[in-house]
Amino acid sequence: MSNKEFSGVFPYLVSPVDEQGKVKEKVLSSLVDHLIKSGVHGLTPLGSTGEFAYLTWTQRQRIVEVVFEAAAGRVPVVAGVSHTSIREAARQAREMEAIGADGILAIMDSYFPVPPEGVVAYFRGIAEAVSCPVVIYTNPSFSSTNLSLEVIEAIAEVPNIKYLKDASANTGNLLFTMNHLGDKIKVFSASAHIPLFVMMLGGVGWMAGPACVIPRQSVELYELAKKGQWDEAITLQKRLWTINRVFQKYALAPCIKACLELQGFEVGAPIPPLQPLTGPALKDVEAVLKTLDVL
Amino acid sequence: MSNKEFSGVFPYLVSPVDEQGKVKEKVLSSLVDHLIKSGVHGLTPLGSTGEFAYLTWTQRQRIVEVVFEAAAGRVPVVAGVSHTSIREAARQAREMEAIGADGILAIMDSYFPVPPEGVVAYFRGIAEAVSCPVVIYTNPSFSSTNLSLEVIEAIAEVPNIKYLKDASANTGNLLFTMNHLGDKIKVFSASAHIPLFVMMLGGVGWMAGPACVIPRQSVELYELAKKGQWDEAITLQKRLWTINRVFQKYALAPCIKACLELQGFEVGAPIPPLQPLTGPALKDVEAVLKTLDVL
Amino acid sequence: MSNKEFSGVFPYLVSPVDEQGKVKEKVLSSLVDHLIKSGVHGLTPLGSTGEFAYLTWTQRQRIVEVVFEAAAGRVPVVAGVSHTSIREAARQAREMEAIGADGILAIMDSYFPVPPEGVVAYFRGIAEAVSCPVVIYTNPSFSSTNLSLEVIEAIAEVPNIKYLKDASANTGNLLFTMNHLGDKIKVFSASAHIPLFVMMLGGVGWMAGPACVIPRQSVELYELAKKGQWDEAITLQKRLWTINRVFQKYALAPCIKACLELQGFEVGAPIPPLQPLTGPALKDVEAVLKTLDVL
Amino acid sequence: MSNKEFSGVFPYLVSPVDEQGKVKEKVLSSLVDHLIKSGVHGLTPLGSTGEFAYLTWTQRQRIVEVVFEAAAGRVPVVAGVSHTSIREAARQAREMEAIGADGILAIMDSYFPVPPEGVVAYFRGIAEAVSCPVVIYTNPSFSSTNLSLEVIEAIAEVPNIKYLKDASANTGNLLFTMNHLGDKIKVFSASAHIPLFVMMLGGVGWMAGPACVIPRQSVELYELAKKGQWDEAITLQKRLWTINRVFQKYALAPCIKACLELQGFEVGAPIPPLQPLTGPALKDVEAVLKTLDVL
Repeated sequence: MSNKEFSGVFPYLVSPVDEQGKVKEKVLSSLVDHLIKSGVHGLTPLGSTGEFAYLTWTQRQRIVEVVFEAAAGRVPVVAGVSHTSIREAARQAREMEAIGADGILAIMDSYFPVPPEGVVAYFRGIAEAVSCPVVIYTNPSFSSTNLSLEVIEAIAEVPNIKYLKDASANTGNLLFTMNHLGDKIKVFSASAHIPLFVMMLGGVGWMAGPACVIPRQSVELYELAKKGQWDEAITLQKRLWTINRVFQKYALAPCIKACLELQGFEVGAPIPPLQPLTGPALKDVEAVLKTLDVL
Repeated sequence: MSNKEFSGVFPYLVSPVDEQGKVKEKVLSSLVDHLIKSGVHGLTPLGSTGEFAYLTWTQRQRIVEVVFEAAAGRVPVVAGVSHTSIREAARQAREMEAIGADGILAIMDSYFPVPPEGVVAYFRGIAEAVSCPVVIYTNPSFSSTNLSLEVIEAIAEVPNIKYLKDASANTGNLLFTMNHLGDKIKVFSASAHIPLFVMMLGGVGWMAGPACVIPRQSVELYELAKKGQWDEAITLQKRLWTINRVFQKYALAPCIKACLELQGFEVGAPIPPLQPLTGPALKDVEAVLKTLDVL
Repeated sequence: MSNKEFSGVFPYLVSPVDEQGKVKEKVLSSLVDHLIKSGVHGLTPLGSTGEFAYLTWTQRQRIVEVVFEAAAGRVPVVAGVSHTSIREAARQAREMEAIGADGILAIMDSYFPVPPEGVVAYFRGIAEAVSCPVVIYTNPSFSSTNLSLEVIEAIAEVPNIKYLKDASANTGNLLFTMNHLGDKIKVFSASAHIPLFVMMLGGVGWMAGPACVIPRQSVELYELAKKGQWDEAITLQKRLWTINRVFQKYALAPCIKACLELQGFEVGAPIPPLQPLTGPALKDVEAVLKTLDVL
Repeated sequence: MSNKEFSGVFPYLVSPVDEQGKVKEKVLSSLVDHLIKSGVHGLTPLGSTGEFAYLTWTQRQRIVEVVFEAAAGRVPVVAGVSHTSIREAARQAREMEAIGADGILAIMDSYFPVPPEGVVAYFRGIAEAVSCPVVIYTNPSFSSTNLSLEVIEAIAEVPNIKYLKDASANTGNLLFTMNHLGDKIKVFSASAHIPLFVMMLGGVGWMAGPACVIPRQSVELYELAKKGQWDEAITLQKRLWTINRVFQKYALAPCIKACLELQGFEVGAPIPPLQPLTGPALKDVEAVLKTLDVL
């Protein structure tokens, strides 16, 4: 499927793992099937919501295998890859493509500050290790690496780096980047932006954890935006925004796992020391899901 | 004019002051006249762009007098008030209303962290000192005081606190606030947001430095948004955004003063130790103004 | 007294002000007298602990007059001066010297980021307005202006800028600065450092709020350090450190005002919206004073 | 050796790895031998300076094996362990002890914010997986996890958690922690503190990258501190501090690798995308080594 362009709603999948560290394959397959039947346009295992940072390489590998098999070619699978070292990240990307990933979501982990040339070299190293399209992921909240316009521009020169997933919350900065880069790179919104606005600015879709929980409404919003029905779209977007708030308030992965458990998907708890939602937080999330008619 | 509701484009005026600290009254009057003739809906002296933080009380007072006289009742004047102490801020607000201000832009300065009750007490203290409407100004970049939803909600209970000018760059947070507060408070966008999007979410206009430089285009954008002509509006917004970038890049007040000088308004240099734009920065700003056909 | 070198313990005085904004002159005079009789080597009105940022110019002026009269030449008075604009800060410094201040504590307020040349120009502007010695105050916690080594070095070239009061908590950085600048500038410790260690590195004393509350012990510590009795000094320093912790925990000015009230000085509440200590915080502070035998 | 108490100078070893990712065993062994002969009291592979965050598990394992064999029981080896998940960190600790590590340096990696209970659970999980002593490592600069006094106190209850290595630069906070915890936990200084001062406060030594480069002088400083010869110690400490500055300025691992290369240890370049020191940075480091007579 790697020649297809990516666009639309790509849920960030959670990573269901039991207490012994074993991937809960059945529940992951059934979530994948449910999301595809709900109309999503692609799947993204091993993003932030997928607790990539908490998984061993063996677990990451197994999760992408299960997602790939369950998707069965119906939608593209864009697998997250993240490390601090170029060499190891490139190796992981190569193996993910061998498993069958249609694209790579390239995330840069860091410990020491990395100079701009190092950032460019990291993303280039991943891209050159594979032949499929690569999505660059920026997340200033969790990663100390900041991608300046100059760095994004240099990265966009690499032929198979085709998408940028911007997870800053600063839509003005993103508009500036999009104005500047034009067709050189396509943009997916993250949940920190209001996805509708990124679509209005020319974005091609969004990759986001909440789409696991509200796939149909997310697709509906995408369709309205694509048709330019902005008044209906803004009404729906305002309604859907409540889930983004609990998502940010309750630490992404724990929140989406709690939502899916409430919806009957036995994805289990987040990986310790992450803590599952309980008490008032769980009630808060439940109330939000009810207002969105998904419970 | 104080019974009128505020909406539309309110430029943040610069504060032209000569080297001896004297207000350049003539240039300020002529700028006010030009902006009103360009269609702006109100005027806001003593915001961030107005270098309020660099002025003595005597200078602030004189600036609002000059603006009030030059406006001559054609549009409402919303004067900025800022101090660390409630008592002094309330005194300033009272005097600004006596001069003729139609509204107060209430800005909270701080040195030590202030607990939420203190923040509410500060804004309440200003509002109770006057009878005109009050606009609450939040600016996490320059002020260490953060306004949580709970604090904004408590502030909105004060009868004459009617507007919120949000200067964060996080439009998602603003949507959450607007969803939650509904009609309790009306929202003006700041330049850190994309104003069009704040309008789509139900905002009533924007208060911003760049509107000093591109008043006609700002009014045109506002009119398109008001009529719901979103496709035309987004095209114009994307084009206008370049000025917001130089505005943020070159420290607001120095940037707008440089733009106005280029346009023939002899507003002079920013107040030392702020430095005027020179060399490549000035060229950069000039190039942007040319793309916007205002030079 | 301006030819005398400054060294030793300089308490940051609180600013007792009543609800109508009037300086409580009697209590301020009596505090000054008490501190001098307890052996302190100088007095610093209008530092952070003195709530300088919350006072009008008229209040600041009156406070320095009262302190100057009460000190009656027994110890030097170093008056705080702070503004955003060079012009206004220089004017204040000139007036403070006219009142009788033996030195100026120069504090830089800021709103927009100021480039290094602007920072140097600010401190130079103050120093050139007076003939007395000037102490440069750096405080990265409350002020957005960061003083790099290069900036401090340039400032130290100004003949009457003779002291640096470093209020960062990074003693390693301070050692580096001291190694580099040698005799060009003398260093006072702030309460964020452990004063004894700054003395060991060659510092000449400390300017600090807690010295209002424990003047005798502070002087004792200073004397031990001066004599190089390090073992006794470290034992005393460890014991005294408890007051620095409550000082930082309970917002400096409110904490010292609470301590002094407990000791019988009716300095009153901090300036609203700052809140006085109550309940458990007050009990916490009281317990600390008891362990230090000053209650 | 696990019954021995840890104290003194523990260099953080660099991790020499070639371009193919292979551990340069010979140079690592020879560095270990050199350090032990220079008098250091222990060795710490896989700290920040050891680029632990850039290594695969296989590389980490091999490094500890090589260090353990080269040390040959002459000094204790405290091996770094770090992950985001408790389960994986505990597994690594267990394997490190099986290789022969005399202690574990427990580092907490994180991506999402972890609540205090999670932090305690993480360190407890590591400690319960081994029988050797555990050193808790805090580093607010590189890790988003902050250890409050309450958290440290709870962690110190675990029987084999015996040491705290504090890498904040705030010596005042550390004094407060030490005053509060007393004998419950022993403290090693990191390079962000001035080690001598941590010794004066009751610390037992320091774990630090620069000790790879100046082992003899570090041991000399430790001996002076132990004997309470404070005047000689402060003179030496001031002289040695220059290396700490370049260490912080030039990104720890790249700096120490550059220093060791200059000293003739062919440890190679840091792991990409980290960049080796070149040009003026390298000259700067070289000049510092010359002033310390180690070149």
